[in-house]
Amino acid sequence: MLTNLEHIGVAVQDLEAATELYTVLLGQEPYKREHVASEAVDTVFFQVGGSKVELLAGTSPDSAISKYLTKKPEGIHHMAFEVSDIRAEMARLREAGFVLLNEEPKRGADNKLVCFVHPKSANGVLVELCQSI
Amino acid sequence: MLTNLEHIGVAVQDLEAATELYTVLLGQEPYKREHVASEAVDTVFFQVGGSKVELLAGTSPDSAISKYLTKKPEGIHHMAFEVSDIRAEMARLREAGFVLLNEEPKRGADNKLVCFVHPKSANGVLVELCQSI
Repeated sequence: MLTNLEHIGVAVQDLEAATELYTVLLGQEPYKREHVASEAVDTVFFQVGGSKVELLAGTSPDSAISKYLTKKPEGIHHMAFEVSDIRAEMARLREAGFVLLNEEPKRGADNKLVCFVHPKSANGVLVELCQSI
Repeated sequence: MLTNLEHIGVAVQDLEAATELYTVLLGQEPYKREHVASEAVDTVFFQVGGSKVELLAGTSPDSAISKYLTKKPEGIHHMAFEVSDIRAEMARLREAGFVLLNEEPKRGADNKLVCFVHPKSANGVLVELCQSI
C-alpha cells in the first residue's frame, strides 16, 4: 500500500530561476538542495505540509530530465509515493501487471530507495515508489 | 502561504478503467466520486496519507479536461495546494506577478473554493489553490 504522497517532481530548465519563483509561489524557502550524481540532476526541495515539491534540472545531456525536456515542455514530471517496504510493493505491482522501470530499488535523492513505474502502466503518469533509508 | 499538497489531479479518458487501475496501484478503494457540473467533469478521489489523488474525466466536449485531452495525452493535469485564506493568497500571488485564471474564487470539487494559477507562471505547472468551505 502507498502510504503518502511523498513528493511531486517538477522538471525545469533553469533551476535557479525556478527556485526563486517557487519560493514566492509556495511562500517559503527550500529546505534542501542536492546533487544526485547517479541521475545527473540537481534538485531543490520544498516541504509543503506532509509532502514535498522537488524541482529537478539535468546536469548533463544524458540525464533523464535533460532528455525529457528535449521532447516535452517544463512541468510536472512524476509523482512519488512513500512505501514502507519497497521490495514488497514492487513485487505486488509487478504481479498485478505494472511495468517497473528498474528491477531493483535504486538510490534516489533525499535519502530514499526508489523505483519507477512506467507511465504506460498508470494513465501517462510516471509514478515513483520511495522508501526512506 | 501554501500549507499542504492537497491533491494531484490526473486527467483520464476512461474514468472507470482508470479507477480500477489506481485502486490496484494505490492499494485502496476511492473514498469519493463526485460530478462537478460547473466544470463538466466526473471525479474520483483517493486519500493517500495527507494528500489525495483526483482522477478527472470530462463529461462534455466543452469541459476543460476534454479539451485538454484533445491536445495532450493522459497524465498529471494539476497540483493543488491547501490555503487557509484563498482571497489573501490570490492577492499575494497577483501582487507578485502570477497570472490567475479566475479573478474570484469558484466552487470546485470536494467542498472547496478554488483558484487556478496559469501554468506559464509556474514552469508549466497548472497550480490550484483550494480552501475548504
